[in-house]
Amino acid sequence: MPNTIYIVGAGPGAADLLTIRAAELLRAADVVLHDDLVSREIVDLCSTSAQIVNVGKRCGRNGSSQEQINALMVWHASDGVERTIVRLKSGDPSIFGRLGEELDALRHAKIPFEIVPGITAASAAAAAARVTLTDRRTASALVIVTAHNTRNESRDRTILDPARSTYAIYMPGPDYRRIAREFTESGLDTSTPCAVVSNAGRANEETRFLELGELASASGIFPPALLIVGEVARDHFLARRAEDQPPAIEGTSVTSSPSLNL
Amino acid sequence: MPNTIYIVGAGPGAADLLTIRAAELLRAADVVLHDDLVSREIVDLCSTSAQIVNVGKRCGRNGSSQEQINALMVWHASDGVERTIVRLKSGDPSIFGRLGEELDALRHAKIPFEIVPGITAASAAAAAARVTLTDRRTASALVIVTAHNTRNESRDRTILDPARSTYAIYMPGPDYRRIAREFTESGLDTSTPCAVVSNAGRANEETRFLELGELASASGIFPPALLIVGEVARDHFLARRAEDQPPAIEGTSVTSSPSLNL
Repeated sequence: MPNTIYIVGAGPGAADLLTIRAAELLRAADVVLHDDLVSREIVDLCSTSAQIVNVGKRCGRNGSSQEQINALMVWHASDGVERTIVRLKSGDPSIFGRLGEELDALRHAKIPFEIVPGITAASAAAAAARVTLTDRRTASALVIVTAHNTRNESRDRTILDPARSTYAIYMPGPDYRRIAREFTESGLDTSTPCAVVSNAGRANEETRFLELGELASASGIFPPALLIVGEVARDHFLARRAEDQPPAIEGTSVTSSPSLNL
Repeated sequence: MPNTIYIVGAGPGAADLLTIRAAELLRAADVVLHDDLVSREIVDLCSTSAQIVNVGKRCGRNGSSQEQINALMVWHASDGVERTIVRLKSGDPSIFGRLGEELDALRHAKIPFEIVPGITAASAAAAAARVTLTDRRTASALVIVTAHNTRNESRDRTILDPARSTYAIYMPGPDYRRIAREFTESGLDTSTPCAVVSNAGRANEETRFLELGELASASGIFPPALLIVGEVARDHFLARRAEDQPPAIEGTSVTSSPSLNL
């Protein structure tokens, strides 16, 4: 009987934004296969006797990386030694984590698995920026995409009104100019408020509020970042703008780490 | 100086799907104002000396409920006694939690606040159904809506291809027929796979896989439920259908609680 693979969401990076279930599994794990984005403080929760493999660093540099990770999971699950194996992924495994490909490999090899959800970056960024993502007054939908698919793939069918949606763009950088252009071409006003959050939930978390029209000139935003676009950001945006004089063309900044030069 | 209000996400319901930060705040809290949907096992984590108020039960039956909750938060924060106050919300506070209205009230009253994100229902349901929500092969976007806004508000502009998106419908019941109709009218094929997850992350969690065309005849689905619509559900859907003979018109069922008659 092969070992179970526990596919665990690590959340945004702060150790106390792990779920209790995730922390317990990490402490019990004999083998941990983790992505490069998973923070040091979370990896440090693992037992000192555990075998820790950064599959991002080892395999992430070429096209076959996902196949290598799949093979590594199957190998650890099938080697005949009873062990607790954790596949640790940044954020929530089901959102931009290539979970589908890993599940295919495990199902194909008949390896049992369990998924432990994690805090996804959109939730962490909203908490950091102190905004809601949906609002019955202004935002009836939340659309989660990466910068790669803000393109206008199909404009003729939708169940969404873009002006009444919030967009959470994962991995938005570095080309904010293109994102801004694609949103305005889709009909969003250049005055639509945006929040860019770097390192949400970590000690060096930083939030910047801008209008969509200013996004093109945004610079110095450190990854991992998340971009929130929509009316939900307006209240806090206005409050911050009122406090800062003169208004900065690159947006106003709220940082918990004054040493960052953003 | 008023007390800080900690707005805390309780996640889907299982106590070990709380974040560590949330569990620590609950144990330290002197006052907890929680929604009705928050599970008993999470409320039981609070100190026995804490004042626990179910604001859902007390205030949720009439139109002024949100104003009453806002007033209660401001009152507890401002009464001059130094205390730890938690506003506990099901799932993630920023997603369909009326967070925007509560933030407005706190900002207006100049009450300091912090937001602690939680596992949102879409992530919990995907983990329960053992599917991914995005997939670079088939689903480049995740759209989070409630059943109230699957209507065709605007069909002429979108940055999304519906056939390459996953939809996570919060609070989908009881009218699954209407949801199915609106999706098919938006251009989705009736063979699009769906997963309906009840009580995700709890002991009585249950997942049912159906095609969009079968959704109209779905019945006996217990809230809280979440509906996942999209190609991401296909693999598991096919696997379950192959196992179950004869194929059930109401969908195949995976339950961790055999006593539920679904």
